[in-house]
Amino acid sequence: MDDHQLIERAGGTLVGRVMTAIRQRIAARSLTPGAKLPSIRALAKTMLVSTSTVVEAYERLAAEGAIRSRPGSGFYVSSPLAPLSLAEIGPRLDREVDPLWVSRQALEAGEDIMKPGCGWLPASWMPEAALRRAFRTLARARDATLTDYGSPLGLAPLRQLLARRLGERGIEVPPDQIMLTESGTQAIDLLCRFLLEPGDAVLVDDPCYFNFHALLRAQRAKVAGVPYTPSGPDIDMFAQALAEHRPRLYITNSAIHNPTGATLSPVVAHRLLKLADQSGLIIVEDDIFADFEHTPAPRLAAFDGLDRVIHIGSFSKTLSASVRCGFIAASRGWIEGLTDLKLATAFGGGRLSAELVLMLLRDGSYRKHMEALRLRLSRAMIETSARLKALGIVPWIEPQAGMFLWCRLPGGIDAADIARRALADGAVLAPGNAFSLSQTARGFLRFNVAQSTDERLFAVLERALRQSQAPRDLARQSER
Amino acid sequence: MDDHQLIERAGGTLVGRVMTAIRQRIAARSLTPGAKLPSIRALAKTMLVSTSTVVEAYERLAAEGAIRSRPGSGFYVSSPLAPLSLAEIGPRLDREVDPLWVSRQALEAGEDIMKPGCGWLPASWMPEAALRRAFRTLARARDATLTDYGSPLGLAPLRQLLARRLGERGIEVPPDQIMLTESGTQAIDLLCRFLLEPGDAVLVDDPCYFNFHALLRAQRAKVAGVPYTPSGPDIDMFAQALAEHRPRLYITNSAIHNPTGATLSPVVAHRLLKLADQSGLIIVEDDIFADFEHTPAPRLAAFDGLDRVIHIGSFSKTLSASVRCGFIAASRGWIEGLTDLKLATAFGGGRLSAELVLMLLRDGSYRKHMEALRLRLSRAMIETSARLKALGIVPWIEPQAGMFLWCRLPGGIDAADIARRALADGAVLAPGNAFSLSQTARGFLRFNVAQSTDERLFAVLERALRQSQAPRDLARQSER
Repeated sequence: MDDHQLIERAGGTLVGRVMTAIRQRIAARSLTPGAKLPSIRALAKTMLVSTSTVVEAYERLAAEGAIRSRPGSGFYVSSPLAPLSLAEIGPRLDREVDPLWVSRQALEAGEDIMKPGCGWLPASWMPEAALRRAFRTLARARDATLTDYGSPLGLAPLRQLLARRLGERGIEVPPDQIMLTESGTQAIDLLCRFLLEPGDAVLVDDPCYFNFHALLRAQRAKVAGVPYTPSGPDIDMFAQALAEHRPRLYITNSAIHNPTGATLSPVVAHRLLKLADQSGLIIVEDDIFADFEHTPAPRLAAFDGLDRVIHIGSFSKTLSASVRCGFIAASRGWIEGLTDLKLATAFGGGRLSAELVLMLLRDGSYRKHMEALRLRLSRAMIETSARLKALGIVPWIEPQAGMFLWCRLPGGIDAADIARRALADGAVLAPGNAFSLSQTARGFLRFNVAQSTDERLFAVLERALRQSQAPRDLARQSER
Repeated sequence: MDDHQLIERAGGTLVGRVMTAIRQRIAARSLTPGAKLPSIRALAKTMLVSTSTVVEAYERLAAEGAIRSRPGSGFYVSSPLAPLSLAEIGPRLDREVDPLWVSRQALEAGEDIMKPGCGWLPASWMPEAALRRAFRTLARARDATLTDYGSPLGLAPLRQLLARRLGERGIEVPPDQIMLTESGTQAIDLLCRFLLEPGDAVLVDDPCYFNFHALLRAQRAKVAGVPYTPSGPDIDMFAQALAEHRPRLYITNSAIHNPTGATLSPVVAHRLLKLADQSGLIIVEDDIFADFEHTPAPRLAAFDGLDRVIHIGSFSKTLSASVRCGFIAASRGWIEGLTDLKLATAFGGGRLSAELVLMLLRDGSYRKHMEALRLRLSRAMIETSARLKALGIVPWIEPQAGMFLWCRLPGGIDAADIARRALADGAVLAPGNAFSLSQTARGFLRFNVAQSTDERLFAVLERALRQSQAPRDLARQSER
């Protein structure tokens, strides 16, 4: 008799009744994971059964794994699982390539680990001297700057400066339609919470920044992907997705698309906005890589005039990920409600970071830093591209700017397999399917060229490719 | 014939059909607030009607207020209202006392405005010299500290130190069960998003910190209040609320309760935990005022061993609201999922703030600052209490510590009315109903004793009381 039969047979007995009662309470969440079960004596009294019946019921539930005993303390509902587990909602992915795999590996990795899979620049590429100067200046700031909450919209002079900078990119927006946030991620999160009801459909690019998947799962949104081409989303598929899913939102990067490095073409931008207009779609244009561009590409927010496009920026990628400062530019009608939501969920923060960013924008050090950074990235892009090609790893396109190279592996090799081998060998890679809702990017890796300057990386890649090919070669031999 | 009849009669005509089609698209959100309507020519073509029919339909919809015309640009869906308006969900409150009224008034007020209604200390009460020293030290920190993302759980040495500090308060928790956040507010928000499904019931104290209301509305939770007594929530009402609402969560402050300043008694704490145990309730203990205490009061997390209690702290109230650093201490099973959620919704931030807090905790300046601060608050509490009593404004209890005095106004005067008058006279007050779900605190004001040291405040209060009494006195006279 196996366990299952045992449980079945117990169903009609007193023991079975007690087990059922407990299972129902767990299912109804009146007993939650980690909760202590009623004492044996108390439950026996309540259910009018003997204590030995309860003991047997508890022991069987423990054997099933539904509850666990803590010696000397009693029984508890086991597996205190996350009620909202981002790794478990949505398409079943191997934990090693789920949407947060790359982030966690890269953020948790020691400094001796290479991180060509991460989405930020090495500390040594950041404007260290300017940041140190800014901190010394902050040390002499007014006491309110050092200790008070920020204003609801955020530091006014910085919003004025941002309005001017956006204007130069063709996005006309008054400072009171800009709300500062603590990061680009917080900006997108606030917008999703503000605009979406649970169950609303959202379109993303396939592939797209993996954190969009995680963030939208947290939002309980239904996510649909549209294949991304070198000039933007596939417009026919986009129109089809609009008709099929009736999405509320589309989240994208217009320029220096993550992970592909592609840039939206004006013709696709125009068609996209026309479709959005017809179907009442709202577009979130996440533009955190804007300052990496050599020549500004078309922006949806510029074409649309912030009517149905919401524009997001941040300084995490260009200045410091430690100085948290992002922003939202949106239509006047939305800013008030977004500000209430920011206060409710994060209160008035970010004052120090805003002061710091303002200093570096004003004194010219940000501009100088970005000029040097763009050149350095261009060189790294060319070098990394050549080295990868030598290994048979071929860029999908040659991006105009930015830090990302989206590359196809040779001979149908699985990127997740390469990523696992490389991790054991000291490098965090970003396997393609972490970015792909349809899981159609298993043959791709995203490389950060600024994190790919270490010679050893290419030795690691070569070993991983060789090991990954070997078993299949063996398999092919045995087929003969 | 009034407008309504006009619209009714138009129902069966071509104009009516066009109007209905547009109304349906607005209702189905395929046309969202702010969205541009199809051009007159395009819609005429699609609906097989003349352009003059569409013109008339659009003009009638504009007269109704459903859409509006922008000269030279076309027609737009009007009132771009927030889809999620925190001020409008839940009990209808006057905007002047809705949950975010106090925050926004206090955060937006200029520095010449008195803020006895706000929930933080004046900049001059904060450890300015120590903060300046810490900034100068940060200016010399390693480059990674200045520019990189933080680790998912947050700075390890700070978590170790927090674990030790919590241990001193009887809360045993290893550092890997502590996750740093950017604030206490972010901590509660993450917990709500992690533990609640939309529509889940949550218990709060009545009165409680008003932002709990705003935050839970953003979460689409059903909120129920339990009357708060000077020794904690009313236990009989608590048991009744558990039975009636079957809440998933209870959010509270055990010590130095906001807004009352009360402290949970050991006997109420014990009964509370017993009830929680029986009903599978999870408790979020928001303990951001902990370091203000002279003698540590009982903590639910200490009694419970972080089994079903989650403990929250922050340094925004004691060190700086600009240096954003809070934390969550919770059972091991929850920390992993919370960390994923933090990454998805805010990514890895707060590194600089964590380093700063660590410095001030380590070098003893935080301890010295808090010792002085507690004394200063005690003195301000005594003085403010006496001055308020002289005006007939009587504290509900004399709190053991902290910055809040919860006070009853004389003669049934409405606190919202006083708050409006005081605002016009240069002071932001915190009217009782902003804290009360049942709206039963209209006769109360919360005073921050550290923000009530300015003589002029009491003149403002006296005038407001006099003006508020006058009309009723007149009314009483006319009743004779």
